[in-house]
Amino acid sequence: MDQPNFRHAEPSDYQPIIAVLDAWWGGRHMADMLPKLFFVHFRSTSFVAEHKGEIAGFLIGFVSQTFPDEAYIHFVGVNPEFRTLGLARRLYEQFFVSVSALGCRTVRCVTSPVNTESIRFHQRMGFQPEGSARTADGVPMVLDYDGKGEDRVLFTRQVTPVQRATNGLFKA
Amino acid sequence: MDQPNFRHAEPSDYQPIIAVLDAWWGGRHMADMLPKLFFVHFRSTSFVAEHKGEIAGFLIGFVSQTFPDEAYIHFVGVNPEFRTLGLARRLYEQFFVSVSALGCRTVRCVTSPVNTESIRFHQRMGFQPEGSARTADGVPMVLDYDGKGEDRVLFTRQVTPVQRATNGLFKA
Repeated sequence: MDQPNFRHAEPSDYQPIIAVLDAWWGGRHMADMLPKLFFVHFRSTSFVAEHKGEIAGFLIGFVSQTFPDEAYIHFVGVNPEFRTLGLARRLYEQFFVSVSALGCRTVRCVTSPVNTESIRFHQRMGFQPEGSARTADGVPMVLDYDGKGEDRVLFTRQVTPVQRATNGLFKA
Repeated sequence: MDQPNFRHAEPSDYQPIIAVLDAWWGGRHMADMLPKLFFVHFRSTSFVAEHKGEIAGFLIGFVSQTFPDEAYIHFVGVNPEFRTLGLARRLYEQFFVSVSALGCRTVRCVTSPVNTESIRFHQRMGFQPEGSARTADGVPMVLDYDGKGEDRVLFTRQVTPVQRATNGLFKA
């Protein structure tokens, strides 16, 4: 398969993504967590992987306005038809490059304890979990982080200013 | 009743707010739209009105990272017990002052066509709606803005750098 192209997210990406989002998550209702505002106001740190006009994956992130040296990845999705190409890794690497250039040294993201696939992915990507409680698999987590009963694994990774785009990643 | 105090939002405000959020909206499920990240990473443009240790209202907003001269109000809530004090107006005014000082000249927000109370509030606050379709009350709106069937009223207001905090608003 040809490799997808990577580019910044645009507001016009929102409709095709939101139309398939719940299907990408196996029917789980996700759309409320992804209002259009992220495609409008955080374009410089949000990316789309596109293959022959079809959206193969996307990453929504931003620079923290409280901590300008920290960046946050809010939402990442990969089209199930494109799940063996390492797209999530390349979207994350593109994000690391972009936020490094914007002065960030730390990247944070949050995932659910039940999402073991996500936890393993973040560990492979060099993220460290924080928290005093533990998931069933022994990964540190924070109880009730996103409200009562909404435990979360909080991941942190350092990024360095020398990190460079490689292997077909576009330059921001 | 004593007037509430206004201050920046803090991560520790999240738990007491998320615990009552759906109740403030008459049982409507709102919590998915307000993850904790907003209380962590957008504190400089997010505010809480507090009365004797109780949260009377809050506003979550940010500066657009795509358009640094634009700011966006994502979420505003007022405790039903504090709804006759003009808290929403004061939270908006505080936001206008703060984002003006950060170089913003435009404030945007989005509401639902069915939320006539919100539409009237924004019109009283000097916001103008955009869009080519119309709500039942004749207010311009954008069809399918937040996904299929998710029509929205898009509001815009200019803010000027001379705007100043008045009447008990705290200085950011």
